[in-house]
Amino acid sequence: MVVDVVDAIYPRVPGEELGRRHEALGRRLPELDLDLTLFATNPNLYYLTGSMQDGLLALSRQLPAPVYLVKRVFERGRYESALADVRPSVSPTKLRETLGVCPVKRLGLELDAVPHAWAERLRKGLGGEGIELVDVSPVIREVRAAKSPWEVANIEAAARQSDAAMERVAEVLREGMTELEVAIEVEVAMRKEGWEGFTRMHRFGSEMFLGGVLSGPSATKTTSLQAVMGGWGLSPALPHGASRRRIRRGEPVAVDLTGVHMGYISDTTRTFCVGPLPKELRERQHAAQEILTAVVGELRPGVPNTRPWERAAALAQELGVAEGFMGVGRERMRFIGHGVGLELDELPVLAEGFPGTVPDGATVAVEPKLVYPDVGVLGEEDTYLVAKDGTRQLTKARPGPIEV
Amino acid sequence: MVVDVVDAIYPRVPGEELGRRHEALGRRLPELDLDLTLFATNPNLYYLTGSMQDGLLALSRQLPAPVYLVKRVFERGRYESALADVRPSVSPTKLRETLGVCPVKRLGLELDAVPHAWAERLRKGLGGEGIELVDVSPVIREVRAAKSPWEVANIEAAARQSDAAMERVAEVLREGMTELEVAIEVEVAMRKEGWEGFTRMHRFGSEMFLGGVLSGPSATKTTSLQAVMGGWGLSPALPHGASRRRIRRGEPVAVDLTGVHMGYISDTTRTFCVGPLPKELRERQHAAQEILTAVVGELRPGVPNTRPWERAAALAQELGVAEGFMGVGRERMRFIGHGVGLELDELPVLAEGFPGTVPDGATVAVEPKLVYPDVGVLGEEDTYLVAKDGTRQLTKARPGPIEV
Repeated sequence: MVVDVVDAIYPRVPGEELGRRHEALGRRLPELDLDLTLFATNPNLYYLTGSMQDGLLALSRQLPAPVYLVKRVFERGRYESALADVRPSVSPTKLRETLGVCPVKRLGLELDAVPHAWAERLRKGLGGEGIELVDVSPVIREVRAAKSPWEVANIEAAARQSDAAMERVAEVLREGMTELEVAIEVEVAMRKEGWEGFTRMHRFGSEMFLGGVLSGPSATKTTSLQAVMGGWGLSPALPHGASRRRIRRGEPVAVDLTGVHMGYISDTTRTFCVGPLPKELRERQHAAQEILTAVVGELRPGVPNTRPWERAAALAQELGVAEGFMGVGRERMRFIGHGVGLELDELPVLAEGFPGTVPDGATVAVEPKLVYPDVGVLGEEDTYLVAKDGTRQLTKARPGPIEV
Repeated sequence: MVVDVVDAIYPRVPGEELGRRHEALGRRLPELDLDLTLFATNPNLYYLTGSMQDGLLALSRQLPAPVYLVKRVFERGRYESALADVRPSVSPTKLRETLGVCPVKRLGLELDAVPHAWAERLRKGLGGEGIELVDVSPVIREVRAAKSPWEVANIEAAARQSDAAMERVAEVLREGMTELEVAIEVEVAMRKEGWEGFTRMHRFGSEMFLGGVLSGPSATKTTSLQAVMGGWGLSPALPHGASRRRIRRGEPVAVDLTGVHMGYISDTTRTFCVGPLPKELRERQHAAQEILTAVVGELRPGVPNTRPWERAAALAQELGVAEGFMGVGRERMRFIGHGVGLELDELPVLAEGFPGTVPDGATVAVEPKLVYPDVGVLGEEDTYLVAKDGTRQLTKARPGPIEV
């Protein structure tokens, strides 16, 4: 690939970083007893190759090293990826021969994300019905849950985008502005800091433009996303986020933002208000912040994923804000935080009944929110690194309520 | 659902529009001989219900009317959809009973888009291995290819966003600005016109933030997308679009934008230049525009999808711009246009060897582009309605080259 002036400013994932990831995955894959594993979705392809060209990453105990097969654009894939073995892709029928992997009885694919027809075409090309398909998503999601210092640095860079945007909201927010007008200011502030503008989510059907600016009752409108807030959005064609509603004095304005840098996501929420927040709402806001502090105090590697939720729910009860905590009625959510990384909905999920424990190196967004349908949402959210040597806050906007 | 001040400004898809779509689909579905069809991807769910909450649209000859089953958020789905039968969703095992559809031997799903595990879970719940899965994507994609006047009006609204953004580029473009700086101006101009900020693509793995601002050689960098141009983007985590490259005097700057209104997409490209475009490049730009005019002259309902490409390729030869036409080397594309609608890569595809003909009511983007790796890309793209009563241009920015 011709290298031009851009080369100096186009970042790449370091080879050592890829090495660490393949080692971690290599420790887990044997439990699935696979003959061949093929990764194809953008987040995993990028995680394991440093590139998300149209292609496949092939892993097998029969292969000496990972093979990145690129359909389009090969030269770019080779340029972007620090892997040693990058090759032009071949059709599924030639895959076994090209790789020298045979037989393929158990084939690992990201079954919770790749299209049905795509997976079946691959199975057919590799030999047909006799091949058993095995979902590798749970394993790679667990590997991805523990971040390296390099990944944490990227999440911190993403956090600087949303931190800057929160300051911008404090500067421009005025009574009578629409949510959309404030959202535009947010987006510009984030883009100036290098926001990549595309927040990936893992769950089938989940899409996001920007977390959004949600004023008063708008914030309490839930939608298809697995989230406490939703907002109206501009139309049912992307039914969440900022709408054309005009912001009023004295109502809570929830600003929920996802920074994105090198694909890595930060997640943070602040509560704003034009004029002073009414006393009762201010007390509730402080209750949410007290819950946030308490939950963060629970975070350490090895803690069961259920415990932060239990602590949050108990404290909400104690503080008299159980009603409205994490939603109302059927739409109430029973979680208090979630992993963030290359996707907004990563592991661990800090939720009622969620199995497993918080891994060393987890990056989680903790987001106590109080929902009052006629009034709005109060709460605060920050992203944290949970590590053996302590928990570190990554998003750092000044705490709310931010009254302007 | 509580209706608040936003209700007056939250648009909905008219019931008559849904009726027309179900009629058109109803004429095509019998050829697949399905017992039950379930749509689940956002574009089709929205197309057939007016809503994209987390749910399913069920169709069957055993059902008197379409049933929209909503998991989350039911009240919002009922509010957004003009369909008469909106119900809370049930688990796959209870689906047959709830709908009263039995037996289910042939099940229609969007197999080219729904995750493998998701489809298999549904098959299992409905009765298991005995059920044959049939891909309904080709049929619904063909139905969606012919737009109604209401849909065309939405694409025109999207086009006004990108038209405004092109004018903004003409105002602000200066030597030494980065592509990203110009892109921010574009995004603000589009958001002010109601841009929804999320451009959907059908092809597995295709993602897009914004078509982008691509200067000089950057525009010639191809990427995983099925497109003539790519651009560097900010990182390999979204490897296309505007980069931090600084724009130089006298080089072509390709601005390729997708407006989005009510989910409907417009697609347009203009060539800009700081200072005059060098004479030789100007001649090539005019050649591209001549090809655009000639291709548009070929467009009418019933024309084979291959003909516009053949005309374009022949004219490129005649005008002496065959080298570089639609790309170079392995990355050369053999198409001249594509359908746009709820997705950027809809039918028809005006390409070499592409089967079928242009339907009445097709909305297509025609995009002759000339690629010169050391110099940049020249070309022009507009979106057109192809109908019995003539072809109508929907994107209307002033023609290039736009010299500033």
